[in-house]
Amino acid sequence: MMTRLRIAIYLGLMSLFGCAPPRPVAAPDPNSDRITQVSVINALMVGRYDGVVPIPEMLRLGDFGVGTLDHLDGELIVLDGKAYQVRGDGAIAEVGPDRSTPFVVITPFHPDGEFPCPVAANLNDFDARLDEALPQRNNFVAIRVDGRFASITLRSVRRQEPPYKPLAEVAQSQSVWTREDVVGTLVGVRCPSWVAGLNVPGYHWHFLSDDRKVGGHVLDLRVREGRVRYDVCRDWAVKLDGSDGFNSTDLGRNLNKEIRRVESSGDGASDQGR
Amino acid sequence: MMTRLRIAIYLGLMSLFGCAPPRPVAAPDPNSDRITQVSVINALMVGRYDGVVPIPEMLRLGDFGVGTLDHLDGELIVLDGKAYQVRGDGAIAEVGPDRSTPFVVITPFHPDGEFPCPVAANLNDFDARLDEALPQRNNFVAIRVDGRFASITLRSVRRQEPPYKPLAEVAQSQSVWTREDVVGTLVGVRCPSWVAGLNVPGYHWHFLSDDRKVGGHVLDLRVREGRVRYDVCRDWAVKLDGSDGFNSTDLGRNLNKEIRRVESSGDGASDQGR
Repeated sequence: MMTRLRIAIYLGLMSLFGCAPPRPVAAPDPNSDRITQVSVINALMVGRYDGVVPIPEMLRLGDFGVGTLDHLDGELIVLDGKAYQVRGDGAIAEVGPDRSTPFVVITPFHPDGEFPCPVAANLNDFDARLDEALPQRNNFVAIRVDGRFASITLRSVRRQEPPYKPLAEVAQSQSVWTREDVVGTLVGVRCPSWVAGLNVPGYHWHFLSDDRKVGGHVLDLRVREGRVRYDVCRDWAVKLDGSDGFNSTDLGRNLNKEIRRVESSGDGASDQGR
Repeated sequence: MMTRLRIAIYLGLMSLFGCAPPRPVAAPDPNSDRITQVSVINALMVGRYDGVVPIPEMLRLGDFGVGTLDHLDGELIVLDGKAYQVRGDGAIAEVGPDRSTPFVVITPFHPDGEFPCPVAANLNDFDARLDEALPQRNNFVAIRVDGRFASITLRSVRRQEPPYKPLAEVAQSQSVWTREDVVGTLVGVRCPSWVAGLNVPGYHWHFLSDDRKVGGHVLDLRVREGRVRYDVCRDWAVKLDGSDGFNSTDLGRNLNKEIRRVESSGDGASDQGR
């Protein structure tokens, strides 16, 4: 694959010039080890969907990530430095520079390790198997899975207009669809349990097929085969909105139950016909 | 004052060259707007006192901040780019480059505004008056108060050796002392309420006298006069420990009550005789 070829060339050049590989696991370069999030999840939960950071500025923070767009206009996937939007109807487009994000988690993806993808029968099983393989539970972990999926269930949300409704309410009318035998990439972030209120504790997966025709927020999956690459991030940066509206919003509420429902449920309006 | 003179010269030069001032509150420079914390407060609460970031590396993250040293060896104050240690017996020394910190909150201090210090009769009153003046409750605010204090009650903690006891236990044998009519600087950080578990919600004040003879973590105060300067920070970075010990520690517990007790109580062993 192109990526492996590039890594091989890079490592070859590094050894040629007598340099050490860029990121040993024990003492990673603090700059490339950063994972950045825009705003906090509770702001999104209460309906703050206006963009905080423009897409071009966001892409300077990393090449790999998950989030959403201004107006909650679908699922946002950053893969290999490109930003993709999965709209409410499932259509996929590259995101233009005029758009912005109210919430994203993004990092420069430099793998700390890799292993064959567990052949899991569902998403819970998949996450549990990854937990066994990745014991860094108080660090953030960006996880890239290139694989073939026997089945994958995805969702996206539809663009909202002000006055915005809370996310738990909007998610009730999300679109959900299932595709079988797709080849593509899972773009995922695992956050420590203690990020509750600030980010989504545990795994947060978006998917993009190799042909860029299927994508969205992953609600369930069945793995056929694949490869997991992971990047442990010890430097967590949060870019806060500085607006009066943000500062007068009560973000201290416990919305964990709502977040879990919004992130994991498949009980929205099904849209299998797409 | 030198600082004001420098700002005036800088603004003069800026207007001469037709540039905008460097940090309007509405759209601050994202780099100078960063506040960084090393580790999370719950790690300190459960007794993780080994240093995570060396002092020289810490000083590259800012010139203003509050924290503690490896082995919980006293209170750490960063003021005007220098790191000071207030030991358990109240003695003050500049911190050497061989030391490190297990927890600190630090920022490059660039004031966004200033106002006369409220003449408060106690710390609760003082914090409440600042809340009125600083409505940015979902942003972090670094606050510098240069003033004269009718009275100030301080504490510090004594160096610990492994196996470390939890902070709530150590704090029971803290030293507490009160000084009257001192001139010096309050080095403070106000965190949003939603940082619970990660940092100290609300105000966290350390004090250093002008003659560098009196300092510590502030438990109470009575203001005579002074000047408040504040720096609103929208970019919050957390540098996590990557060790196995950190990753196997349960940091998800609710320790808010213990944190409040450790940060605000004056019920430790009194040491007025110092």
